[in-house]
Amino acid sequence: MRLTAFSDIALRVLLLTGAAPEGEKLTTRAIAEGVGAPYHHVTKTVGRLSGLGLLASSRGRAGGVSITPAGLDASVGALLRELEAGSAMVECEAPGGSCPLDRSCRLRRVLADAREAFFRELDDVRVRELVSGRQAGPVLVSIGLRPPEQPGSTAAAPIP
Amino acid sequence: MRLTAFSDIALRVLLLTGAAPEGEKLTTRAIAEGVGAPYHHVTKTVGRLSGLGLLASSRGRAGGVSITPAGLDASVGALLRELEAGSAMVECEAPGGSCPLDRSCRLRRVLADAREAFFRELDDVRVRELVSGRQAGPVLVSIGLRPPEQPGSTAAAPIP
Repeated sequence: MRLTAFSDIALRVLLLTGAAPEGEKLTTRAIAEGVGAPYHHVTKTVGRLSGLGLLASSRGRAGGVSITPAGLDASVGALLRELEAGSAMVECEAPGGSCPLDRSCRLRRVLADAREAFFRELDDVRVRELVSGRQAGPVLVSIGLRPPEQPGSTAAAPIP
Repeated sequence: MRLTAFSDIALRVLLLTGAAPEGEKLTTRAIAEGVGAPYHHVTKTVGRLSGLGLLASSRGRAGGVSITPAGLDASVGALLRELEAGSAMVECEAPGGSCPLDRSCRLRRVLADAREAFFRELDDVRVRELVSGRQAGPVLVSIGLRPPEQPGSTAAAPIP
């Protein structure tokens, strides 16, 4: 059982932009490098996620892509329900599917119910909960961002 | 979101053999034709399902493949949990997966939980419930089996 490549990349893009220091804008090229996916796939994904209000992107020298508050608060279940809509769970549902049992099949209804149970399980999971700037640090640094702050690292240790 | 091709074919094989008239044995070639899948994939699937006790197969002139009582009673959830074990939901889980965020990712745990919810939803669905000999009739006839009996068709209509 596998998510579509589109959903897979979309989740990675949200995890990466969500882990970036606040206010930091990333180029699409840096995101593609950071998530290890082809540039033109990432471009399409960024466009779709921007259309859903989960990313903000601006053009120009100071432009770039960043996650929005709505992106951080996005429900993973709701997002996947949106992105996976219309994808086929079994070949017979796909365009040109070749199963001759198609017309006699009650399987699709029960698979659709099970898919909904899958989404429901993720409805209460927010992108924010999956994001860890500190753990994503090496990737952020590799694409030219500053290392994420360590908690307490800027304050002097209290003298007892 | 899509099941693996192996699970997809396995479900079709169970639906077809489950719809065949009781005691009827099918050749693997007829099953392949009936489910619209390549012969060598179906051979592998029949082997796996026989190993799980869901199909019975015998060699020789009078040999063939038929579903077992355990096959008809099989839970779709339990079967998919078995067949999908080890399959990757996202690329990073796959061998050679390329996501650089791998180490910082909390996504896999929540996806694994959601997948379990998917299986759980199907735990109470039995192969028997998905099978309809009457509706699969045209496919059964096309692979050389007799048409399934219509309820009441052998008895004379009662005279009022």
